[in-house]
This record gives sequence, C-alpha cells and structure tokens, in this order.
Amino acid sequence: MTSNHPLDTATRLTRVAAARLAGVTSDTYWNFAGPFGGYIAALLMRAVMDDPRRLGPPVAQTVNYCAPLAKGHFEIAVVLPRSGKATQHWSLELHQAGTVAATASIVCANRRETFAHDVETRPAAPPPETVPVAPSPERLPWLGAYEFRFIEGGPRFGEPARDVGDLAPPVTRLWLKDRPDRDLDYVSLAGLADCFILRLVQMRGTLPPMSTVSMTTYFHALPDELARQGSAPLLGIATAKRFSANFHDQSMELWGSDGRLLANGMQTVWYRE
Amino acid sequence: MTSNHPLDTATRLTRVAAARLAGVTSDTYWNFAGPFGGYIAALLMRAVMDDPRRLGPPVAQTVNYCAPLAKGHFEIAVVLPRSGKATQHWSLELHQAGTVAATASIVCANRRETFAHDVETRPAAPPPETVPVAPSPERLPWLGAYEFRFIEGGPRFGEPARDVGDLAPPVTRLWLKDRPDRDLDYVSLAGLADCFILRLVQMRGTLPPMSTVSMTTYFHALPDELARQGSAPLLGIATAKRFSANFHDQSMELWGSDGRLLANGMQTVWYRE
Repeated sequence: MTSNHPLDTATRLTRVAAARLAGVTSDTYWNFAGPFGGYIAALLMRAVMDDPRRLGPPVAQTVNYCAPLAKGHFEIAVVLPRSGKATQHWSLELHQAGTVAATASIVCANRRETFAHDVETRPAAPPPETVPVAPSPERLPWLGAYEFRFIEGGPRFGEPARDVGDLAPPVTRLWLKDRPDRDLDYVSLAGLADCFILRLVQMRGTLPPMSTVSMTTYFHALPDELARQGSAPLLGIATAKRFSANFHDQSMELWGSDGRLLANGMQTVWYRE
Repeated sequence: MTSNHPLDTATRLTRVAAARLAGVTSDTYWNFAGPFGGYIAALLMRAVMDDPRRLGPPVAQTVNYCAPLAKGHFEIAVVLPRSGKATQHWSLELHQAGTVAATASIVCANRRETFAHDVETRPAAPPPETVPVAPSPERLPWLGAYEFRFIEGGPRFGEPARDVGDLAPPVTRLWLKDRPDRDLDYVSLAGLADCFILRLVQMRGTLPPMSTVSMTTYFHALPDELARQGSAPLLGIATAKRFSANFHDQSMELWGSDGRLLANGMQTVWYRE
C-alpha cells in the first residue's frame, strides 16, 4: 500500500501480532459520534485483504456496530475459524480501550468459472455527467470523502415530514464514487456499501439519534471487473420496507459501468424516537 | 421448553458451562450432507433466546456455514462482546469434534414504541387454503418438516434448463409454515428464513453440489405480532440478482397474516459448476 489516497491512509494497519493489527482513526471519514460505518467496514475488509492466509476474493461481509469508535488508536483481532478449498471464514473484532467497537465476519472464496447469469442488469439512469454533484455539508466530514450525484431521492434535511402522508419515497438512486478518485477495490466497495443516507433521515427529513447496528454486503464482482470499473461512478440504489419499534431495514445495490451488479446487501438501523 | 414439537426437541440445548451449550442433531431437519441451514440458524437463535442475559427480542442474525454438521453431539459457545441499554451483540460458534461448523452473530434490542411505518404491505396472493400443499420428497427429510404451498415458482426438479434462455424465473412465492403446526416464535422464524429452495436449483432445475455459505435475517416482528400470527402460514417470497463464479445471492421476505413484514434477509450460496 503506497497509495496516499485518504481511504488508504485511513485504513493503513500495522501487524502487532500474528492475529492482531493496529491502526489509527482518520478525521476524513468522521460522522457524528465516530467514523461512518463504511469506514469501519473498509478497515475490517483491509485486515482480511492484507492477511497472507487469504484464499481469494471476499464474497460476504457482516459488520456489527457495537460502540462508537473514538479518535485515536484501535486494534483488530483476526481469527480464521475455518479455511477450506472452496471457502474461508474469518471472524474479526475491533477493539479500543477495552471496548469491542465492532465484530465482523468475512467469507472469502476460491472463485472459478461456472454457470453465470445476470438475472437483472443495471436499471436505466441518466449519465453521471448530466447529474449535478451534491454539495458536502462541512459538519459531516465523511460526506466530503465521496461524490454523490442524486438522480432520485436526494437528502431533504431541514424539511421534516409533517405526518406519515408527507414522508418522502423510500428509494434513492444516485451515482457514487470515492473523492478524490480512487480505483475500485474490495476495501472501497465495503465502504461504498454504507454510503446511502439512512432511510429514516431520507423519508422523514429529521436527524434523530440513529445508527447502523448490523450491515451485510455480498460482493459479486471479481477482481478483473473491479479493475475495469476503475474510478468510474457506481449506480447506487437503496430502499427500505419497514420501520417499527426503534429499527428499520435498508437494502442497497451497487451497479458497475458494464451493467452488472457489483455488490448488494442489507442493514438494520436503530433510531431513538 | 416442554413442547414436543420436532423443532423444539431438535433445538433442545443443555448448559454445560456458563458460556457453552450442548445438543444433539435431529434427523427431522436432515438435508443432503447435514441438517438444512435453517435448523442451524434455529439452534443458534435458541442458544441466545435461552440465555438469561438476553436484553430483548432479536433484530438481526448472521449465520456463516463453515462445515457440514454430522449426526450426533455438538456444542455451542456463546459470547456477549457488548451489551448496552438499546442493543446487545452476541457472537456464537457451533463446534463438533474439533471443527467449527458455523459462526454467527445475533443482535438483540430493547424495543419500544417509536415512529413506525410499513413502506410496503403484503403483496396480493390467493388464500393459502386454495393453493395445494406440495408433496414432500422422502430423500430430503427437512422438506417434510414444513408445509409448502407454491403460488409461483415451484420446484422443477428433473426438468433441467437446456440453456440460459430456458431458465425458470428467479421468483418464488409460497405459503409456508412448520409441520406439524407450531406457534411462531423467533426460533422458528430463524429456520423459516432458510426454507426457500436455492435459486440455482429453482432456475436451472439441476442439483449440483451447492450450499448456503452465509445468511442474514432481520426480524421486524415484535413478540405480540408473533403471538397473533400463531400457526398460520407466512407468505414467503424469494428472488436472486446475479449468479457468477461459484456464488449467487438470494433475498427473501416473510409476511404475516396481518399484512406486515415479519422478517427479511439475504444469503449467498456456493455452487460447484
């Protein structure tokens, strides 16, 4: 890792023991009370990508957000409970000052040519250059680390819904990429998976205390697809199905320039009121 | 647990240490090379539901299937890396004869009344009693532990697709419940989440070596909703977006009699060819 891209400096890890890595948080990916969840996902993905035991590309990642990460030093404990010929299962814990800030599982796999079929291809969307880049609010640094071009369902901060009938639609479609430009890899894809404004904010236009509690991402793209994608924007789509009793679901898709689904996944979001 | 329902006897666990439970597999939920994944999910959910430290209902579960579980004894190691006022994070490992057969994370939460909104309600479907019950093939016992009424996208074993143009559609819609009848709880819901025929089988009509590698389920239903659902069938919907290089995604929804989404989730499936 010789790149000086903010994502690479922010996810640089040092091996302090066979199964333990150390790092320092970056202000670039800061949200309200800690880094945004996509940075944590990218960090944990980096820990596995850097591991010499890794079998092949990641196919699935689940991150459980247990506590906010404070500014400063942290450590990641990496365990490999099972490694076979076809798949490999990793378990990770992100520790800081005696607290578990996140737990995660990552599945890597040996990926060979098999039956392949794109059940869906990328939905139609206006070309990215025809969609304006959204301004970045300064108080949330992580939003400045990505370029957002909202096609549909852009944020409506400061216009709270008066009642359920006034809620915004659940769907957001946007063009999305790292800022500054960075060639796509599994580390950045893990972070991009969490770049969608939480649906509660999107639909209600309010900012109550809320945070992602658990997020799962499935990586369909093979390394050669990521290489072809380069730094071009991805088409992102997010939606939700149900809000109740402090939680809502959120699903997302990230589509590549070649019209194929690079990653999809879901998360559950806690909110206070 | 005094119920003699097969799911309750099959998921009965004995505490052998503070953080360790023991159990024995059941033939009722047997698939090809071990129990079907929904049984493993139900077992791991049981381990947390039985734990006196549990904060509230589960909201998310991820199960990583590492190795087939053989017939006989197994143990579940239960760790609680983080327990707060609002959420609680559990990490589990299913062990058998020195092998990790599965790892899992479960998030439980304190669920209070908040803003609530059903973005979608249950899609229209013919009443369950008008849809025939599918026969259960004897060689796969777990299929006999559930009642399947296929509305759309029933299994087409023995009619393999000749080419990509001949693939069946990706979507299955069905009425689904435990057999014999059993009142719905989080243990059974965890199992029902994996009751969908794998999309590769569904679409190609073939049975190559394949298995679920990682599955995540989000539980929206509160305990009073489960009580109202009782043993009535759930409307299940499954689909997939992309098959490539040994893996495909599969998403699912389980809808209740009151028209609300009880659970949804995704999995990634490995297949050989």
